[in-house]
Amino acid sequence: MVANVALVTGFEPYGRRGINPASEVAKRVAGLEIEDARVVARVLPVSFVALRPRARELMRELNPRVVVSLGLWPGEPTIRLERVAVNVADFEIPDNEGSLVRDDVVEVAAPTGVSCTLPLRAIESALLSAGIPARLSASAGTFLCNATMYTFLRTEQALAGARCGFVHLPYLPRQVAALLDDLRKEQQLELHQRADLASMSLDAMVEAVRIVLAVSLTSPA
Amino acid sequence: MVANVALVTGFEPYGRRGINPASEVAKRVAGLEIEDARVVARVLPVSFVALRPRARELMRELNPRVVVSLGLWPGEPTIRLERVAVNVADFEIPDNEGSLVRDDVVEVAAPTGVSCTLPLRAIESALLSAGIPARLSASAGTFLCNATMYTFLRTEQALAGARCGFVHLPYLPRQVAALLDDLRKEQQLELHQRADLASMSLDAMVEAVRIVLAVSLTSPA
Amino acid sequence: MVANVALVTGFEPYGRRGINPASEVAKRVAGLEIEDARVVARVLPVSFVALRPRARELMRELNPRVVVSLGLWPGEPTIRLERVAVNVADFEIPDNEGSLVRDDVVEVAAPTGVSCTLPLRAIESALLSAGIPARLSASAGTFLCNATMYTFLRTEQALAGARCGFVHLPYLPRQVAALLDDLRKEQQLELHQRADLASMSLDAMVEAVRIVLAVSLTSPA
Amino acid sequence: MVANVALVTGFEPYGRRGINPASEVAKRVAGLEIEDARVVARVLPVSFVALRPRARELMRELNPRVVVSLGLWPGEPTIRLERVAVNVADFEIPDNEGSLVRDDVVEVAAPTGVSCTLPLRAIESALLSAGIPARLSASAGTFLCNATMYTFLRTEQALAGARCGFVHLPYLPRQVAALLDDLRKEQQLELHQRADLASMSLDAMVEAVRIVLAVSLTSPA
Repeated sequence: MVANVALVTGFEPYGRRGINPASEVAKRVAGLEIEDARVVARVLPVSFVALRPRARELMRELNPRVVVSLGLWPGEPTIRLERVAVNVADFEIPDNEGSLVRDDVVEVAAPTGVSCTLPLRAIESALLSAGIPARLSASAGTFLCNATMYTFLRTEQALAGARCGFVHLPYLPRQVAALLDDLRKEQQLELHQRADLASMSLDAMVEAVRIVLAVSLTSPA
Repeated sequence: MVANVALVTGFEPYGRRGINPASEVAKRVAGLEIEDARVVARVLPVSFVALRPRARELMRELNPRVVVSLGLWPGEPTIRLERVAVNVADFEIPDNEGSLVRDDVVEVAAPTGVSCTLPLRAIESALLSAGIPARLSASAGTFLCNATMYTFLRTEQALAGARCGFVHLPYLPRQVAALLDDLRKEQQLELHQRADLASMSLDAMVEAVRIVLAVSLTSPA
Repeated sequence: MVANVALVTGFEPYGRRGINPASEVAKRVAGLEIEDARVVARVLPVSFVALRPRARELMRELNPRVVVSLGLWPGEPTIRLERVAVNVADFEIPDNEGSLVRDDVVEVAAPTGVSCTLPLRAIESALLSAGIPARLSASAGTFLCNATMYTFLRTEQALAGARCGFVHLPYLPRQVAALLDDLRKEQQLELHQRADLASMSLDAMVEAVRIVLAVSLTSPA
Repeated sequence: MVANVALVTGFEPYGRRGINPASEVAKRVAGLEIEDARVVARVLPVSFVALRPRARELMRELNPRVVVSLGLWPGEPTIRLERVAVNVADFEIPDNEGSLVRDDVVEVAAPTGVSCTLPLRAIESALLSAGIPARLSASAGTFLCNATMYTFLRTEQALAGARCGFVHLPYLPRQVAALLDDLRKEQQLELHQRADLASMSLDAMVEAVRIVLAVSLTSPA
């Protein structure tokens, strides 16, 4: 077992996208040394069935002090810090295995909600001071991001004190560029019908996650 | 030729929608007597080729004092009063004949812009006083709505004094209900990627157009 | 004690608004007889301190079979059916007593989340079938609406089987009309900086709440 | 007179903001040599009275081959390439001299609209290929950005062949960070009432304007 690990998770691409900022950012922070901790990055499958055992396995394997999970929220313009995960799984689009879970739970006979244990206000302040748009959010949705956050927070390692949380990321600029290019070819939706044109640079997102980790590793509870 | 006519135009459904609020509203105001004028309603084809001769023909046939053209702007939450039409035709989706005009003009060798000749500020005030959300807009887009507004304003009847303008309407509530129902079935876009969920009741839109006509028929230039 | 009551709650106006659609709708459904139940409407104070004892008192007084609480979500374009309430109280604006609660809980030593016990999918289907835009939501925010939902769901009557839920309503059209009128006078924000221009007619909202009640009173768990 | 100049204009800060991305970007491209042209950057006053003589003076002084004017559009998530300017001056907020022009024209007895003479489609393609979100727009608004575009396009140098256009820029990330910080202090608007949270990095905007200039200096008409 590795001592003093900070785990960052991303996701594979999904929803007919070729790239996912969550895994791009995760790769970029992998190996960093922050406040005596080593950052270990892992990419999670976009699969409701596979991600939960994978999350539990990572906790056993790495026993991290801090877990920061990353996911894309199309259209989100800021670094979005999730306060709570809920025991709801209800997908609008299928996961990468074609599973379209509807009106189900993440975990049977488990609490309706669990709270992020990262120091969110200290993180928010540090991000804003660094000039990075950030805000707290009361919902991580009901897709795999929420299920991941819920699952990590319910592991025995989290209950024993490992700090866990979820951060939603905007699109990368090149994803919006590709979307705008596609829209001209698809000829289905008019641009003003789309709410998902905001983006953030990879560098800003990497710096944001570095700040999230640094504050989480040092800030008192 | 009919004396003292106010012409209201709507459009057929388009863009794979089964209904168009513009023609629904037009039908509802047809036959009204407002300030000594009789309201004549006509539904225009969603065809770049056909709509311009049709507009000119209607002006010759009816010689209206006032022309209020109506069109749908998906996502618009207010009665949107267009200030100007531009000599640009550039479609994001095909018209109902499959024509996808790109980077073209509405009329060859013609001015870049033409101004609405309805009394927009008086209309805006009257709508807001009636509790109906309304605002002025600096762009009618570059699809058929703009082309219609441009064409009517360039007719000889308009140049001789017939007041012409274009009003963009929100979706009808039942259209958004159907869209939300479809989104659950289509499983392609997540709801937060959509910017087109606003709507307005048919009654409010009918009352709005009645007010537009009344103010246009009575307000000094 | 009254037999077979359906309780509908609204709120006073808040946030420097002169009206609240929640109380307007509540007043309109008061006294209706739906599926053998009598609708009792109550207006709650926009006060974090006062609303929780008031909610508990109403439950004791009326012992309702169903509780549907209503609140305004500025900018929301649909009837928004809340799935969960969270044990978070974090206000962006003060309540009507000037209290600006930050990063607090609704109830000490209580669960992070509680689930709506109304039959939300049946309600959503009934609303969409009636042509009324509606959707499920994973967050009721962290202001008084969420606190109200959380509090009702935590009463002993709710735990004993009274169905409780929260429905967020759009602005009334006249509120957006007033907002647009004010924006021209205030000269502070440009219109494209505002996301809160959507509205829904009072009649549609009243009909929506009637449907919510009817389905909640008849649909099996 | 300088030979072979490309003029880039920005604006001073306005609307109670401490910074304007337009002038930040202008400063960063100042002095570049692109396709045999030298980039000259000038910051325009946010004054309806002063900006028009200043624009004409710059054209006489510099006789540029290309003019790219930059301005902020709060909330815009992309590089927004304006197709047309209109002869309308109608402000929602005062300019920096406190002037709140309403329902006026930019130039007396002048055309309603003028078209951008930059090669917009070639620019759009080059930006999207470079992974920078970009789109064409049919309206530059009715504030000083539109007035600037209109004025440059109406100079004798523009009529004689100098290519002129206007590019709307998103907020800088640090502006949105400051806005989010202020919102917590102001306690007036809730976050979901704001539509202006998108931003773009300064580097991406600088690169975008460099591409706009390079394509404008080389692409055939």
